[in-house]
Amino acid sequence: MKNWDWFRKQNENRGILLVRCADRAGIVAAVSQFLFSYGANIIESHQYSTNPKGGTFFIRIEFECPGLREKEAGMKLGFQEVARVFLMEWKLIAVREVKRMAIFVSKESHCLLELLWEWQSGDLITELVLVISNHEDTKDMVEALGVPFYYIPATKENRQEAERQHLTLLQEHQVDFIVLARYMQILTPSFVANYQNKIINIHHSFLPAFVGAKPYERAYERGVKLIGATSHYVTNDLDEGPIIEQDIQRVNHRDDAEALKRIGRSVERSVLIRAVKWHLEDRIIVDGNKTIVFQ
Amino acid sequence: MKNWDWFRKQNENRGILLVRCADRAGIVAAVSQFLFSYGANIIESHQYSTNPKGGTFFIRIEFECPGLREKEAGMKLGFQEVARVFLMEWKLIAVREVKRMAIFVSKESHCLLELLWEWQSGDLITELVLVISNHEDTKDMVEALGVPFYYIPATKENRQEAERQHLTLLQEHQVDFIVLARYMQILTPSFVANYQNKIINIHHSFLPAFVGAKPYERAYERGVKLIGATSHYVTNDLDEGPIIEQDIQRVNHRDDAEALKRIGRSVERSVLIRAVKWHLEDRIIVDGNKTIVFQ
Amino acid sequence: MKNWDWFRKQNENRGILLVRCADRAGIVAAVSQFLFSYGANIIESHQYSTNPKGGTFFIRIEFECPGLREKEAGMKLGFQEVARVFLMEWKLIAVREVKRMAIFVSKESHCLLELLWEWQSGDLITELVLVISNHEDTKDMVEALGVPFYYIPATKENRQEAERQHLTLLQEHQVDFIVLARYMQILTPSFVANYQNKIINIHHSFLPAFVGAKPYERAYERGVKLIGATSHYVTNDLDEGPIIEQDIQRVNHRDDAEALKRIGRSVERSVLIRAVKWHLEDRIIVDGNKTIVFQ
Amino acid sequence: MKNWDWFRKQNENRGILLVRCADRAGIVAAVSQFLFSYGANIIESHQYSTNPKGGTFFIRIEFECPGLREKEAGMKLGFQEVARVFLMEWKLIAVREVKRMAIFVSKESHCLLELLWEWQSGDLITELVLVISNHEDTKDMVEALGVPFYYIPATKENRQEAERQHLTLLQEHQVDFIVLARYMQILTPSFVANYQNKIINIHHSFLPAFVGAKPYERAYERGVKLIGATSHYVTNDLDEGPIIEQDIQRVNHRDDAEALKRIGRSVERSVLIRAVKWHLEDRIIVDGNKTIVFQ
Repeated sequence: MKNWDWFRKQNENRGILLVRCADRAGIVAAVSQFLFSYGANIIESHQYSTNPKGGTFFIRIEFECPGLREKEAGMKLGFQEVARVFLMEWKLIAVREVKRMAIFVSKESHCLLELLWEWQSGDLITELVLVISNHEDTKDMVEALGVPFYYIPATKENRQEAERQHLTLLQEHQVDFIVLARYMQILTPSFVANYQNKIINIHHSFLPAFVGAKPYERAYERGVKLIGATSHYVTNDLDEGPIIEQDIQRVNHRDDAEALKRIGRSVERSVLIRAVKWHLEDRIIVDGNKTIVFQ
Repeated sequence: MKNWDWFRKQNENRGILLVRCADRAGIVAAVSQFLFSYGANIIESHQYSTNPKGGTFFIRIEFECPGLREKEAGMKLGFQEVARVFLMEWKLIAVREVKRMAIFVSKESHCLLELLWEWQSGDLITELVLVISNHEDTKDMVEALGVPFYYIPATKENRQEAERQHLTLLQEHQVDFIVLARYMQILTPSFVANYQNKIINIHHSFLPAFVGAKPYERAYERGVKLIGATSHYVTNDLDEGPIIEQDIQRVNHRDDAEALKRIGRSVERSVLIRAVKWHLEDRIIVDGNKTIVFQ
Repeated sequence: MKNWDWFRKQNENRGILLVRCADRAGIVAAVSQFLFSYGANIIESHQYSTNPKGGTFFIRIEFECPGLREKEAGMKLGFQEVARVFLMEWKLIAVREVKRMAIFVSKESHCLLELLWEWQSGDLITELVLVISNHEDTKDMVEALGVPFYYIPATKENRQEAERQHLTLLQEHQVDFIVLARYMQILTPSFVANYQNKIINIHHSFLPAFVGAKPYERAYERGVKLIGATSHYVTNDLDEGPIIEQDIQRVNHRDDAEALKRIGRSVERSVLIRAVKWHLEDRIIVDGNKTIVFQ
Repeated sequence: MKNWDWFRKQNENRGILLVRCADRAGIVAAVSQFLFSYGANIIESHQYSTNPKGGTFFIRIEFECPGLREKEAGMKLGFQEVARVFLMEWKLIAVREVKRMAIFVSKESHCLLELLWEWQSGDLITELVLVISNHEDTKDMVEALGVPFYYIPATKENRQEAERQHLTLLQEHQVDFIVLARYMQILTPSFVANYQNKIINIHHSFLPAFVGAKPYERAYERGVKLIGATSHYVTNDLDEGPIIEQDIQRVNHRDDAEALKRIGRSVERSVLIRAVKWHLEDRIIVDGNKTIVFQ
């Protein structure tokens, strides 16, 4: 396990307040007044309204609050008052509580490696509690870093049974969210329901182009001049979940399907890692089938 | 009309040879030996084979040949010999012969303006012989530059009649190729057949995503993080022609459909202008439903 | 003159509050409470502190306030109270008051053309009140759009006299800010002093590389693989002013200095236009020799 | 050691011919005729002339030649004839001969890691024969992959002695080229002379901006909106060698020097890896203080 004590210490008093409610005047005043009453200094604040006149209002406030650990329970209790007035959905997050991540992977290791490296080098602030794979290819590199690796064969046939094992492991390890780092198995609705907006996938095309299987092959057939990658939350509609991040890379007529795959790997890596970081920092809010990314 | 005498003079002896044939050893040797025998110096050469072993071979050679004007007919005759041996399709182009362009436009003027300015500033080496539109909105700006403007109302109903007028005008003006600068009417197969691989369209999405109408509205609905534009040759399958160039621009949750349109304009402009320039320089070879772009 | 009535009407009640002060807890609470007391709904809010603990705090709040026109004077008076407590520098801006722009240009017209076009198409919300040039090359295109054009020869020798004429014109036309759209004359400190942080320049390199003259020639000599452009506010130190925006374009060994210039034009255009738009929307705050861009 | 037998087998008959000579008509004809006479099929060909009329001519031809292993000596002998006529500098390379790479690294491990992973995953076709470092930080990760790691403390004081050890190791391991993966020591002219155009460095700025030490800190001070990285061959002038590749990443006012370093890491990684790959594929030709990159 990585030691995140430096991070916990550094963010001892750092909190994040996420709020969603119907838009109207006075929300920011009420929320900021509330924080001020606890001695909190607002460090970063992002807001968005789906419609200036009416619509839904979203705000993410990051604040520094001396003595947060002691005040936390009181703040949560106190904020219920504000929330009641504005009919808010809300969440108060202590930044020092590092999120616990599981990675699912199949044979292709580049996305896994990117996650491992960013985590290892201290750039991905997360407890990497386990890696689950339906292949044994990446076992050695995962265990070399001291991370538990579970080999659970998964096919269409044994999906139910495999997912039961997955769920048991995830619960045992108190996993907060899951990253599908090129995991080539479909998840059942009941599995997804357990981790709503908490499963991040990387799709190897700029969605909605090339939904489904073999996107690089189809990109090659179509003769596109750009290939892309898309990171999104997993829903029950394949490749239709809320998009978190996308990026592309230029290609040309010389690049065959194999070359597209090779070029695509680096886009997939960087797109996925950005999405995971934003998730870890609670910067992503899902609104219907879209994401609001406060950066 | 722009005066391209400086360009004609500068490229007095500049030629381009385009060749396509079955791949085998000895092609480059034969072609370069041929050019050398006419005293031509190869300035730029690009080749591509669909498959190293077998497949189709393409080459574009740009050369400087003193006295090209006088040698041209002889070279064309002489090259038939080489072509026969390798069963080549080929074309010998004198660069001094500036291509004649027609622009079709509807109401949105940004792509037209980009073309006009690049042409006016001497960066788009083409005879801009006429602009045809089914709206009168852009009449003034076109005529202010001394370019003939033809207003030809076109709807589903009068398509046949309108295209008859188009064809007459295009033939009278000896047009070499057509740019659809956001022309919002569908062309009939018989019209397209007259200008095969000579009609360049700009589609306001990164194809194959958002084929068809209202791509920005649909991009907004899907919540994409990138919008794009695609320039392609027009075929009878809507938005399915060979892609010449694509590019994208980053957007975020704050950008509504109107904002996407505004941001998209600059991508459309730059993608279209690159495609038109490559066409003018005979850098694009259509191979089935793909393009080879030799740059 | 463009008719911006639609914009004024649409933004009848839209205001922007810009604040700078020493960072401490309670600022957002005080400001948002103030706005709420006038019935203003916060539409967009960005803040930044140079240092979470201490340092300078900046905030830009865009709000919708029914009856703003009538309330404006009262709000300005009332905010003095808040400002006094926190020792704020501040500005309250009515969005409906469209800023008045002057453009300075020399021979190269591409940046001017971009500005004219974006303005003409309604994307650059500004009163374009005059264009000043030390050459007559762009006279026709400017006057064709109904914009006053002043030809004022300017050289090292007559700089003082020329600037006197400039200032007279700028004052007569009540110009709010100046865009140097490739204006190749140096401005004197006394001229700059009149328009502090109100003169936007485009430099044709990614500063601080290639400060000074002939950046493309020097980029070619150095063999760089990227060329860039930088938009910045003008100070008395040549090319050293606060950078607003930068971008680059990829080049290669085939591109000679002329090609770099041609490729560079499109980067210059897009970088300058972004900087001007952000200035028009009061999104740029100058902090020492840097800019904070709230977008 | 990685097993590259699949690569050697696949490229059994693949050769590369690199030529440099004074430009004149007939070069391509002579070279391609020569290759054809050995039954070689040209797969890829790139040429460049510093000046269409006169100047230096460069060509890189990749070819497939059945029985290359047996013909190789004869071809080298035979080509001397062609070379004599045109006064060519030239090199004939058998692709199956995998180049031998050494990596020098200090404390920062991200560039080393990128190289290790690309090598490990089979994307970087090279014999990674040793890693040399003046720190022990990366010892474990290197040795875990079975690559010899040499810890050689190096400071200003012991530079001569350290370089003697370096040279001995490099010669023992028959190293073809060296990658400085964030190696923070200066090399002496005599060391550089041993590996002319064979030492690739990564500099953490878009040169020529921020030559020398602490580029991120200086980029932060200047308030740039882009940070970059530059890969170049090492010469005796610090950060002045021929640039191979550059790229940038967007940053903003929120990014302090630490953030710039973090963001910069990913640019450094991708820029360096591209440069190394092009070097391995003999795509880079050094011409004075510039590179020609044939891709």
